[in-house]
Amino acid sequence: MDIQELLAASKAATVSMAGASTTQKNLALEGIAKELEANVSEIIAANELDLAAGEQSGLSKALQDRLRLDAQRVKSLASAVREIISLPDPVGDSVQGRTLANGLMIQQVRVPFGVIGCIYEARPNVTVDIAALAIKSGNCAVLRGGSAAENTNKVLISVIQKGLIGADLPSSAVVTVDPFGRDGAVELMQARGLVDVLIPRGSANLIHTVVTESKVPVIETGDGIVHIFADASANVELAIPIIVNSKAQRPSVCNSLETLLVHEQVAAELLPKLAKALAESSVLVHACEQSIAVMPGSIHATEQDWATEYLGLELSVRTVKSLDQAIAHISKYSTKHTESILTESIANAERFLQEIDSAVVMVNSSTRFTDGGEFGLGAEVGISTQKLHARGPMGLRELTSTKWLVRGNGQVRS
Amino acid sequence: MDIQELLAASKAATVSMAGASTTQKNLALEGIAKELEANVSEIIAANELDLAAGEQSGLSKALQDRLRLDAQRVKSLASAVREIISLPDPVGDSVQGRTLANGLMIQQVRVPFGVIGCIYEARPNVTVDIAALAIKSGNCAVLRGGSAAENTNKVLISVIQKGLIGADLPSSAVVTVDPFGRDGAVELMQARGLVDVLIPRGSANLIHTVVTESKVPVIETGDGIVHIFADASANVELAIPIIVNSKAQRPSVCNSLETLLVHEQVAAELLPKLAKALAESSVLVHACEQSIAVMPGSIHATEQDWATEYLGLELSVRTVKSLDQAIAHISKYSTKHTESILTESIANAERFLQEIDSAVVMVNSSTRFTDGGEFGLGAEVGISTQKLHARGPMGLRELTSTKWLVRGNGQVRS
Repeated sequence: MDIQELLAASKAATVSMAGASTTQKNLALEGIAKELEANVSEIIAANELDLAAGEQSGLSKALQDRLRLDAQRVKSLASAVREIISLPDPVGDSVQGRTLANGLMIQQVRVPFGVIGCIYEARPNVTVDIAALAIKSGNCAVLRGGSAAENTNKVLISVIQKGLIGADLPSSAVVTVDPFGRDGAVELMQARGLVDVLIPRGSANLIHTVVTESKVPVIETGDGIVHIFADASANVELAIPIIVNSKAQRPSVCNSLETLLVHEQVAAELLPKLAKALAESSVLVHACEQSIAVMPGSIHATEQDWATEYLGLELSVRTVKSLDQAIAHISKYSTKHTESILTESIANAERFLQEIDSAVVMVNSSTRFTDGGEFGLGAEVGISTQKLHARGPMGLRELTSTKWLVRGNGQVRS
Repeated sequence: MDIQELLAASKAATVSMAGASTTQKNLALEGIAKELEANVSEIIAANELDLAAGEQSGLSKALQDRLRLDAQRVKSLASAVREIISLPDPVGDSVQGRTLANGLMIQQVRVPFGVIGCIYEARPNVTVDIAALAIKSGNCAVLRGGSAAENTNKVLISVIQKGLIGADLPSSAVVTVDPFGRDGAVELMQARGLVDVLIPRGSANLIHTVVTESKVPVIETGDGIVHIFADASANVELAIPIIVNSKAQRPSVCNSLETLLVHEQVAAELLPKLAKALAESSVLVHACEQSIAVMPGSIHATEQDWATEYLGLELSVRTVKSLDQAIAHISKYSTKHTESILTESIANAERFLQEIDSAVVMVNSSTRFTDGGEFGLGAEVGISTQKLHARGPMGLRELTSTKWLVRGNGQVRS
C-alpha cells in the first residue's frame, strides 16, 4: 500500500468511526487496554531494539528516557486508555438550536474532525494517547512517530488495531506512516482533503517546522516560556512557595516557570529569601544586573536567556521598574502559554488579566495548574498556544468540529 | 512607514481595541456610518477613477459591477454598519467557569483575536464590512483590497479611521497594505505573530492561494459546489419549488445549487416537470446521459461539470441508482458547504444528515437558507467551509478566541 492509498483508507474509515456508538468506542478502548497488558513482553522487546539503535546513533539520555517502556510504563498506558473510557463522548452534543419563524428546525451538533494527523518524536506513549483520544472522539488517526521509536510504535499500532477489530471498527482508523520515513511527514503536511487537522507534539523546532510548512490546518501545542510577575504589593510569604512550585515541582513540562519578573520595590525583600528557597530545590538562577546583587549564587542572565525554555532546574530573573515594563517584557518574550501575577492590588491584577495575551492568565497562583486534568476537562490532548479553534488545555471536545443540521418540510427563500 | 512598521502599529493597537467598551466601539461605528454618508461624493469620485482604470485594463463586466459604488450603495454600506451596532458584543462573554476544589476560580472568556487580516479583490463593500465587524469584536484589521479598488479603498479607509478617532480609538486599528502592491499580500501571509488570523474573500483561486501559501492561520470561506439529492420517495410537488429556489433565487451566491442528483425511481416523474420549471427561470441544464432523455432543452454534462461552481443560471443534473451512489458523488465533488436531501423516508434523511460531511446538511429545504442572517446569527463574516474553529455561517462570535482567567490566593500544586 503506498502512502496515498493508506491516507485514502483512513479517510474511508471516517464514516464508520463517526457513526460508532459510545459503547462501541469504549469496547475498542477496553480491548486496547487488555491487548497492551497481554503484550507487555512483545512491546518491551521491540522497545529494546529502538533503545539499542538510539544508543548507537547517539540519542540523548533525555530522549532515551522518553523512548523507554518498561512493564510499569506499559501498565500506565493501559490505565490512561481506561481513563478515557470514563470521559463523556462529545460526539452528537448539541451546541445550539432553534426553530426559525418559517418552521425550519436548525441544530448545531458536535461531529468528529474526520482524520487527525499527529507528528511527534521518540515518545511511544503519544501513540497510545492520541489513538485513544481520537477513537473516543470518533476520529481516525494517522501517526508519524519518527524512526527512533519505529519498532515500538509498530507493535503498539498492531495492539491498537486489534482493539478496533475486536469492537467491529475498521483497523484503518489508526495507522502509521512511519514505514515511509521522512516522506511520511511531508505527505501528512500536504494532505489537504485527506487529513483534517494536524497536531505536532515535541520540540519547539518540530512544532515550528510543522506550523510553517503544513498545508493542512495545524493545532499548535506545548512550547511554554512561562512568566511570573511579582508586583510591588506581592505578599512575599505567598510568593516564595508559588514561585518555587511553578519552577521546581516538575521542571520538564510546558507549564513550569522559566522567567520571574520582580518589581524593584519588592526585590530587596523577596529575592534574597527566594534565592535561598530556590537553592534548596537546586535551581540555578540567571539574574539580571540588578537582581544578581541580592541573589547570591546566581549567574549573569544574557539576552538569550529571556527567550529560553529551560525545561530544567534553571530560572531567569529580572527586576523591572513597573507593571508596564513587566507587560512589555512578557509581550516580547512569552510563547503565550501561561503567565501569573503575584499582587495584592485589584487594579493591577485586573490590568494583567486584561492585557496579557496568553492562553491562561493567573493571579496569585502557581503556573503548574494549567492542565486539562486540573481544570476538570479530563485527559488532555495538549495545551494549545494558538488562538484559532482551541486555546489552553485541549480535551476531547477540542478534537471535534460542528455541523448544522436543518430539518424542513418544503421551505423556500423569498 | 514600511509594511513591518504598519503591521507593528496595528499589533500595538490591539490592547486599546481589546479594552474598548461596547459603547465606545458602537460610537466608532456610528461615526463611520455618518462619515460614509457625509463623503458620498468623494467616495464616488475615487470609485470612478478605479472603474475607468478597470475598463481600460479589461476588467470583466461582472467585476466592474462588484467594484461600482453609487449613492445608493454607499447608503447601504452605512446601513450595514448601523446593523452591526445593534448586534451583541461577544467580548467578555463567559464560556464556562467553576471553582476548583483547591479554591482556584477558573473562567473561560471570549477575547478578540487581535489582528485580523483580510485579502480580497475589487469589492469595496468588504472593506467596510470587515472593518465594522472587526471593530465590534474588538479586533484590529489589516486589509489588502487589491489594485483594482485602490482609490476607492483609500477613501473608505480614511472614513473608517475618522470614525475610530472620533471615538478615541487608535486609527491604526484599521489599515490597508494596498500601497505595497503584491508585496502587501505576501507579507500578510508571512506575518505570524503580528497577524492572528487571515480571511480570504473572493474567487476559488484566491482562496486556494491563501490557504496553501499562508503561514498565518486561515479561515476558509465561500466556494460552494452545493448539491440536492431527490430521493426515490421525494415529494415531487415540494421538490420542484425547492430545486428552482435553490438554483435561481440568487444564482451568484455560494449557497445556490450547482448539482442535482435524482434517484432513478423518481426521475421519470420529476425531471420533465422540473425541466419546464427551470426553463421558465432561464436555467440551462447540463444533464447526464440518462437524465437528458427526459429533460428537453438540456445539453450533455461533462465530467468537468460535476466539479464546477457555475454561480449563474446553469445546473448539472445526474440520475443515480441509490442513496449510496448519491453520497459517493457528493463525497467526491462537494466543497462541503451545503447539501440537501428531498425525501419522505426518515431512515434516508437521518443517514444523509449523518454521513454527509458538510458545514450544513438539510432535509426538504432550499439550500439558500445557509446564511448567518437566516440562521439568526446577525451579520455574517462569511460561510466557513473548514472544520477548524468555525463551520458554516460565521458571525461576530467566530471573530473571537478565548482565554482562561485563573484567580487564586496562593495555591500551589502538590
